[in-house]
Amino acid sequence: MAILERSDTGAIAQLTMNAPERLNALSDEMLAALQSEFDTLKTQPHIRAVILSGAGKAFCAGHDLKQMIQGRQAEDGGKAYFKDLFDRCTQMMLAIRALPQPVIAQVHGIATAAGCQLVATCDLAVADEDTRFGVNGVNIGLFCSTPMVALSRNIPRKHAFEMLTTGQFISADEAARAGLINRAVPGNRLAGEARDLAETVAGKLGAAVRIGKRAFYDQIEMPLDQAYAHTGAVMVENMLHRDTAEGIAAFIEKRPPDWQQ
Amino acid sequence: MAILERSDTGAIAQLTMNAPERLNALSDEMLAALQSEFDTLKTQPHIRAVILSGAGKAFCAGHDLKQMIQGRQAEDGGKAYFKDLFDRCTQMMLAIRALPQPVIAQVHGIATAAGCQLVATCDLAVADEDTRFGVNGVNIGLFCSTPMVALSRNIPRKHAFEMLTTGQFISADEAARAGLINRAVPGNRLAGEARDLAETVAGKLGAAVRIGKRAFYDQIEMPLDQAYAHTGAVMVENMLHRDTAEGIAAFIEKRPPDWQQ
Amino acid sequence: MAILERSDTGAIAQLTMNAPERLNALSDEMLAALQSEFDTLKTQPHIRAVILSGAGKAFCAGHDLKQMIQGRQAEDGGKAYFKDLFDRCTQMMLAIRALPQPVIAQVHGIATAAGCQLVATCDLAVADEDTRFGVNGVNIGLFCSTPMVALSRNIPRKHAFEMLTTGQFISADEAARAGLINRAVPGNRLAGEARDLAETVAGKLGAAVRIGKRAFYDQIEMPLDQAYAHTGAVMVENMLHRDTAEGIAAFIEKRPPDWQQ
Repeated sequence: MAILERSDTGAIAQLTMNAPERLNALSDEMLAALQSEFDTLKTQPHIRAVILSGAGKAFCAGHDLKQMIQGRQAEDGGKAYFKDLFDRCTQMMLAIRALPQPVIAQVHGIATAAGCQLVATCDLAVADEDTRFGVNGVNIGLFCSTPMVALSRNIPRKHAFEMLTTGQFISADEAARAGLINRAVPGNRLAGEARDLAETVAGKLGAAVRIGKRAFYDQIEMPLDQAYAHTGAVMVENMLHRDTAEGIAAFIEKRPPDWQQ
Repeated sequence: MAILERSDTGAIAQLTMNAPERLNALSDEMLAALQSEFDTLKTQPHIRAVILSGAGKAFCAGHDLKQMIQGRQAEDGGKAYFKDLFDRCTQMMLAIRALPQPVIAQVHGIATAAGCQLVATCDLAVADEDTRFGVNGVNIGLFCSTPMVALSRNIPRKHAFEMLTTGQFISADEAARAGLINRAVPGNRLAGEARDLAETVAGKLGAAVRIGKRAFYDQIEMPLDQAYAHTGAVMVENMLHRDTAEGIAAFIEKRPPDWQQ
Repeated sequence: MAILERSDTGAIAQLTMNAPERLNALSDEMLAALQSEFDTLKTQPHIRAVILSGAGKAFCAGHDLKQMIQGRQAEDGGKAYFKDLFDRCTQMMLAIRALPQPVIAQVHGIATAAGCQLVATCDLAVADEDTRFGVNGVNIGLFCSTPMVALSRNIPRKHAFEMLTTGQFISADEAARAGLINRAVPGNRLAGEARDLAETVAGKLGAAVRIGKRAFYDQIEMPLDQAYAHTGAVMVENMLHRDTAEGIAAFIEKRPPDWQQ
C-alpha cells in the first residue's frame, strides 16, 4: 500500500493518507506524496473536486516527531533539516491553496498541530461529530506557529489564542461554530457528506470554480478598492466565457445548460 | 411608480427598490437610481439613518440577466458593457460604504448574488426569518466574484467558500450566526425592527456617528499601530466638538443633552 | 489601598483595578499604574500568565469623564490633554499586546467603552454570565473610535458596527458567541475559571508561549506568504531550544518533561 492512496470517481479525486500506525503524521514521505499528488492534480482539469481523508483512527496528527528527533542528530543540531522541513510543509499547504480544484477535508478521530493546519488550509471541511481538534504543540514545548497562520485566518482570535496556548482540544461542534469546519455529521454519514459536497462542486462549470477559487484568496488579502478592481476584471473575463453565456441563456429559458467544459 | 421610492420620516430615509416583477434586480436603471439617491443623501445631513428595502416577494435577486445577455450582442461580445456594468455596481456599493449615514438593509424573501452583496455591504442588516441568502452565480457559470468581496469580509472563510462554490442558500438564522446580518425576526416584525434600529441610530449625535462610520472602515484595513494613531486623532477631533462637551456634561449631571446638531 | 493591586501566586500575577467608586475608570492614575505594572512584568520571566480584574461592581467603565471635562478647561480647549490621554491609553493597550506573558481578562459587572476595549485587547477573556458589554460612547456624543480598533479585530463587522452606533449592551453569552470573550461562567466560578486558565498557560514551556504570543500578533497582519516565511523561522528557533528537545523526547518516552525553563 502506498503512503497516499488516490482513487478517482468521475470528476472527483479522493486522496487517503495511509500511515495509520503513525496517525497519518506528515513525515518526509507523506509530505512528498501529498506535494506530488497536488502537482499532478493541478495539470488535470478533468478533476473538479478533491477529497482529502485519512486511513485508520485519525485524520492527521501533525508532524512526525520521531523524524524530528532524528533530524536533531546532525552537526548543526538539526537547523538545516528543520528549516527544510517547515519549508516543505508550507509549500504543500500553499499548493492546496493554489490548486485550481476545491479541496474538501474529510476529518475524523483527531486533527492536531499540522493536521489541524491541514483542515484549516483546505477550502472546505466536514468532520465526524466525534473528531477532536487541537494545536497542541505547546504541550511539548513547540508552539504551533505555522499551524496558527491557517487557524487564525479561520476562527476568531481569542478562540485561536486559547487553543494555541492551552493545547486543549475542541469538539467538532465547537469547530463548526468557530468556523474551522463547515459542519459536523455522525460518523456513518461522513464519507457521504464529503462525497455530496464534492459532487455539488464538481457539477458546476469548472472554469467558473477555478476562476473563483483563485480570486477568493487573491482578493481577501487586498484593501477593499483593490479587491473590487481585481474581481471586477475577473467577472468580465468570466462573462466572456462561452459556457457562461450558455449557462445564463439556459437559466432564462428554464432548461439545463449545455456546457462544453 | 419610480424604480426606487424614497420616503422620509424625520431623520430617516427609506429607500424601496421597486421592480418587483424582476425581483428588484440591479438593472442599469436600478443601479443609476440607487447611485443617484446615495449622491443626494450624502449632501443631506438632516438625514441620519437610511433603510434599504425591496418591494414585492424579494429584497434583491442580483444583476439583471436579460440586460446582460443583451449586452453580449455588441461587436466586442459585451466586454465594454460588462466592464462598465461591474464598475457602476461597485461604485454604488462603495457609495453605501462612503455615505455619512448608516445604511440598514431590511431584507425579506431572497437576497442573491449582487443582492446578497448589497446586504453584506450595508452597515447593518435585519431580515425576515424566512429569507434565504445565496451567492449562486456559480449555478449558471458566473462565479460571484464581486459579491464575494463584501461577503468574505462579513463571514468566516469556509462558510463563504461553500456558499460561493455550491451555490446553495443559507437561512436567515444561519446568516445571523455567521455574521452576515444582525438578526432575523418574524416577517410581521421586520419593518418595525428596521425602523427601531434606524431610530436608535438617528437619535445619536449625528456628527459622532458620521465621524465613527468613516473611521470604522478606514481603520479596519490598517495595521494595528496605524489604526490606533488614526482613531486617536479622530477621538481628539470628536472630543473638541461642542455637542460632545454638552453630551458628557449632561451625562454627569444626569439630564438629557441639549444638542444643537 | 493602591489604585492597582498586584498579588502573585507562583508564576501567575493577578492585577486588580481598585477604584470601585469610579467603576475602575481609566483615569490618568489608573492608566499610569497599569502601564507601570506592564513595564515591570515584561522584565519578569518568572511570571508566565497575568490575570486582570476589577474590584467592586464593574470590571471597567472606560475613560474617566470627570477628568476629561476638567481637561477641557485648558486654553486650547483640552486639545493637548486629549491627545496625550488617548496616546497614553493606546500605549497601555499596546503594552498588553507586547507583553511576553498572556493576559487574561476576568470580567464582571460591566465592561464599557475603553473598558470593553481592554477586554478585546487581552489575549484571553472569561466573564461572569451576568456581565454586560458595550461601546456606548455614542450615547454621549463621543464615538468609541479607539475601542473599535480592538473590538473590530475580535468580532464580526456588523455586530461591531451595531454596538458602536446604537450604544446598546450585549450579554456575556452574546459576547462569547461573537468572539469577544472565550466563555461566560456563573459568577461564583469566575475567579476559579480565570485561575484555571492562567495555570494551564503557566504550566507550558515559558519560552514557547513567549515566542508564540509574539508570532501570533506579528503574523496575523501579514499576507499569507510572508506569515508563513515568518512563522517558519520562528518554528526553527523554537525547535532548537534545549527544553523543546526535552519536551519532544519526554512525549515519545511517555514521561513528564524535565524542563530547565
